[in-house]
Amino acid sequence: MIKITLPDGSVKEFEKGTTPMEVAKSISEGLARNVISAKFNNTIVETVTSLETDGSLVLYTWNDKEGKTAFWHSTSHIVAQAIEELYPGVKLTIGPAIDNGFYYDIELPNGSISDKDFPAIEKKAIEIARGKHEYKMREVSKADALSFYKKQGNEYKVELIENLEDGTITFCDHDTFTDLCRGGHIPNTGIVKAIKILSVAGAYWRGNENNPQLTRIYGISFPKQKELTEYLELLEEAKKRDHRKLGKELELFTFSQKVGQGLPLWLPKGAALRERLEQFLKKAQKKAGYEMVVTPHIGQKELYVTSGHYEKYGADSFQPIHTPKEDEEFLLKPMNCPHHCEIYNAKPFSYRELPKRFAEFGTVYRYEQSGELHGLTRVRGFTQDDAHIFCTPDQLDEEFKNVIDLSLYVLGSLGFDNFTAQVSVRDLDNPDKYIGSVENWEKAEQAIINAAKEKGLNYVIESGEAAFYGPKLDFMVKDALGRQWQLGTIQVDYNLPERFDLTYKGSDNELHRPVMIHRAPFGSMERFIALLLEHTGGNFPLWLTPEQAIILPVSEKHEKYAEKVLKSLENNEIRALIDSRNETIGKKIREAEMSKIPFMLIVGENDEVANTISVRKHGGEDLGAIDVTMFTDLVNKEINSTLKTFKE
Amino acid sequence: MIKITLPDGSVKEFEKGTTPMEVAKSISEGLARNVISAKFNNTIVETVTSLETDGSLVLYTWNDKEGKTAFWHSTSHIVAQAIEELYPGVKLTIGPAIDNGFYYDIELPNGSISDKDFPAIEKKAIEIARGKHEYKMREVSKADALSFYKKQGNEYKVELIENLEDGTITFCDHDTFTDLCRGGHIPNTGIVKAIKILSVAGAYWRGNENNPQLTRIYGISFPKQKELTEYLELLEEAKKRDHRKLGKELELFTFSQKVGQGLPLWLPKGAALRERLEQFLKKAQKKAGYEMVVTPHIGQKELYVTSGHYEKYGADSFQPIHTPKEDEEFLLKPMNCPHHCEIYNAKPFSYRELPKRFAEFGTVYRYEQSGELHGLTRVRGFTQDDAHIFCTPDQLDEEFKNVIDLSLYVLGSLGFDNFTAQVSVRDLDNPDKYIGSVENWEKAEQAIINAAKEKGLNYVIESGEAAFYGPKLDFMVKDALGRQWQLGTIQVDYNLPERFDLTYKGSDNELHRPVMIHRAPFGSMERFIALLLEHTGGNFPLWLTPEQAIILPVSEKHEKYAEKVLKSLENNEIRALIDSRNETIGKKIREAEMSKIPFMLIVGENDEVANTISVRKHGGEDLGAIDVTMFTDLVNKEINSTLKTFKE
Repeated sequence: MIKITLPDGSVKEFEKGTTPMEVAKSISEGLARNVISAKFNNTIVETVTSLETDGSLVLYTWNDKEGKTAFWHSTSHIVAQAIEELYPGVKLTIGPAIDNGFYYDIELPNGSISDKDFPAIEKKAIEIARGKHEYKMREVSKADALSFYKKQGNEYKVELIENLEDGTITFCDHDTFTDLCRGGHIPNTGIVKAIKILSVAGAYWRGNENNPQLTRIYGISFPKQKELTEYLELLEEAKKRDHRKLGKELELFTFSQKVGQGLPLWLPKGAALRERLEQFLKKAQKKAGYEMVVTPHIGQKELYVTSGHYEKYGADSFQPIHTPKEDEEFLLKPMNCPHHCEIYNAKPFSYRELPKRFAEFGTVYRYEQSGELHGLTRVRGFTQDDAHIFCTPDQLDEEFKNVIDLSLYVLGSLGFDNFTAQVSVRDLDNPDKYIGSVENWEKAEQAIINAAKEKGLNYVIESGEAAFYGPKLDFMVKDALGRQWQLGTIQVDYNLPERFDLTYKGSDNELHRPVMIHRAPFGSMERFIALLLEHTGGNFPLWLTPEQAIILPVSEKHEKYAEKVLKSLENNEIRALIDSRNETIGKKIREAEMSKIPFMLIVGENDEVANTISVRKHGGEDLGAIDVTMFTDLVNKEINSTLKTFKE
Repeated sequence: MIKITLPDGSVKEFEKGTTPMEVAKSISEGLARNVISAKFNNTIVETVTSLETDGSLVLYTWNDKEGKTAFWHSTSHIVAQAIEELYPGVKLTIGPAIDNGFYYDIELPNGSISDKDFPAIEKKAIEIARGKHEYKMREVSKADALSFYKKQGNEYKVELIENLEDGTITFCDHDTFTDLCRGGHIPNTGIVKAIKILSVAGAYWRGNENNPQLTRIYGISFPKQKELTEYLELLEEAKKRDHRKLGKELELFTFSQKVGQGLPLWLPKGAALRERLEQFLKKAQKKAGYEMVVTPHIGQKELYVTSGHYEKYGADSFQPIHTPKEDEEFLLKPMNCPHHCEIYNAKPFSYRELPKRFAEFGTVYRYEQSGELHGLTRVRGFTQDDAHIFCTPDQLDEEFKNVIDLSLYVLGSLGFDNFTAQVSVRDLDNPDKYIGSVENWEKAEQAIINAAKEKGLNYVIESGEAAFYGPKLDFMVKDALGRQWQLGTIQVDYNLPERFDLTYKGSDNELHRPVMIHRAPFGSMERFIALLLEHTGGNFPLWLTPEQAIILPVSEKHEKYAEKVLKSLENNEIRALIDSRNETIGKKIREAEMSKIPFMLIVGENDEVANTISVRKHGGEDLGAIDVTMFTDLVNKEINSTLKTFKE
């Protein structure tokens, strides 16, 4: 008999050789129907693997990330089989599961695969799936494995096998298909009910541009047809909400090949939006006791040697800037903290003056390979809404709570209500990885967890995810495609105060080391605006949106009146413009809808006579004819419902 | 007889050989008493030079820049004589007039000169001056000149003479003293009534560090003792007003050796001051139809090859930034215009949409040798209040006037009322130096001059001072020492629109080239704040100053009341703080004076009972006990007297 420990801590005895699926059955038939993958002693196994020793077992269903991975990995076998049948002579290479689906890299004997070939592949694949073929793993000797693929003339698999050791090589069979594979499959192909080939792209063998170029087939699959339909709808919606597309349509930002990739140029509407976001945060920060500072975008290499960044990241970063006449080296700043440490060091502080909270909208530059750049979410230059709090260890608790309050205020004012928090703490098994005293770490971790609890955050604790310099809390939000992104971050740092020899005079008249908190409620202006675009589909909160209202004169006759309305709106601090083109009112309304302006103010004969405006909301709701004062009240009311004053 | 044309255009006949001094006498005895130098046919001459041909003559007095130059140059002869008499064996080298006084570089036979030797030199020099010796120029042959200095063993003068051509060498004699000299003297030494040796420094012969080091004696002189006294007072005042000293005292900015020389770090009070200046300009710019943009601080080298900056300045600038994995080169941006051109190029414009006015507080980086760095006036990174206006040639006139209006508004709101303007136009003799059609240049120069005239500017026109790409207008102000600095600038540019192939569609449906205007009313935030500090001695305009009021509780007892007053002030948007230290009220008042806070609000027993504050202005004026509302009115009234709304 063997003892199996389940995730709830319960221990059950089974006969040696019992499979995960049998364990599932012993719990409930319902569970057994849904189990598609398993992990035994921290290794992914098949649901039919015989368990031979005591150990801990986790069973996965489609709802688990691990379940989806097994599902999509298994589907890639099916799709590979379909391709082999449809394209005789094709050479298979590798086909892993990814975040959303899977891909398979293949070498086609001739010709290419395009969109119009997808239905045939999908049809063949789903036919195979319906056969309910079981996935069967078997060990093969290196010699046999090599001989199998050499016979096929597949130099890719041969290369893979040559790098493996005898005794560790396994093949997976299903139906008539065999593949080199480490395992991790669902019980049988029949569970896969819907398969979609999504796209095709070029990819170098092993990602090296000196190697042959292969064809990469991206796909996804689901256990229900309905889920595929929903996913495709989500994809369509995500395309519409893609911040790159919306950013262009709304004229927020652009890129220039001449200026350089990954270096956004903010157009007037985007720059004004940024400015509103910055002023919004500055106002709240002022109330929270922050002081703004301004520091340069470069620093001597020496500065980053002191901070330790040069040693860690120097080789992979933008390279040093030399001067023509003197022996000096500067670096583009990859973060603002070393500069803020130097500001702290500009004068001595007493414990009575702490905490000091230095804030800056600091633009930093980090090298990313051009292939990794993506709109505003992966750029080479971005502006952090950065601040560093220098406090005594005793103040950490209070400061951390204050930062959470500020972060919640920011997320709330911008309509992000569906976020989670991740608390990253030490790996207790590896205490040597971390700088700072155990006592301080315990204090800091407890401070973060207490704060998260007290503030009612929906949080998870991740052991071993802390940085070497301190624990942290990250706010995570999902984009239109369900992908998770980190926005705001709050990090405790014991390292930089050491490296920059920061001190304060305590009540005992001795010098002490302050603790530092790094924090950025937006994260960066670029990423935040990208996610806000995808989150809102470009329908920004009313207080933030570029234009709050567009005045649509029914005809040229009413343009003077439109101008008068515009003037009144401007006096009431409402951002508006006039569409004075010689177009039909119908066309003007349609285009105003497209440009996502929250209010259309139609002005015609009756309005001019009655001194009113006919208000139509974005989306179509008709609010009737009201005067500018009433409209202003309406706008302010809507703004005040989302945009509260911080701490009042 | 010869015909002499005077600056007012009048032509008078004189006998051949008449001297400038005789011409002056023929005009008035008063003028003759004051004339100390002259220019004949664009060459500086002695007042006793015989005029042999027709020509134009300008006579200079002490009030002219040229008069001061002759005065100080002549004084350097006197001081050189004094030094020769006091330090036998000294070798004289060169002794020119400079902006404020003169210097003489000498090689001492042994020992050195220090502050304590100055009175003896001054005494000897003034004794010589009182002799009323005339300056007499005479031509010498190269051989005689060489022999004169070889006999003295003065290898410096020998080197100078060796580089001169026979027939062009002149000596100047006065009293017993002779010097190699090109001329340009006052009539006699007696005009110099006051001489002050200011400082001594080391200087390499001909500025080359491989040459011997000489002793440089700086001095200044005046035609009246009173003027020297005033000048020395001004020097003292300037030391107090040095922006580096004030910036430190007022905690506005600092420098860090680790971050790098010439890279200011703005401390909280300085950053807040900058922010207020920026918001002030943003508000005015919004009214003037500008749109803010945001661009990165680097650009691909290619961008600056296109703009032409790389070819012109590349070798003397911060060197290119390389990337670790890709073959890319970036440069720190030395100006914002190429980026703004790329923003203009992001979409096509019609003539109906012009002018476009893109503004940015853009931080730029320019390499300066470390020896040339000076506080905030010569830095390696600075933020321009930059904007580029893209307009049709026909709009240039109007746009230029608008920019002058904005510049005058900025200077006026900040108390700069004593500025001048310099209009830089083409050198008509060198038309090939300039890009752009003659027609456009004429239009642009006329536009600038008309605008300057119409706006009532105190301006001078400088021929040949235009940039190769277009004419410009600069606003110049003087600092505490009377040194002239360029602040705001308005430049027309025909070059970048060509290089970036900028176009707009005209009413004829064809593509045309827009004209570009570069402008920056502040110039840069760094230089502007430096000059504002020196101009105001740290007593900023009330709307701008870091703290507008400081509350001084007479004793601890009144601290609660002080807090209440602070709250009310904050609610009224007055920036204030409390001095709650346990110090006497006398000491608190003295230190508040030092920190230049405009209002001290003393709160004691009577105030607390009557709900008032006892207001004392910086400088000592007592405004009595009033309530917070009255004080707020008083503050707002004072603010509104200097800070008007733009264009209302």
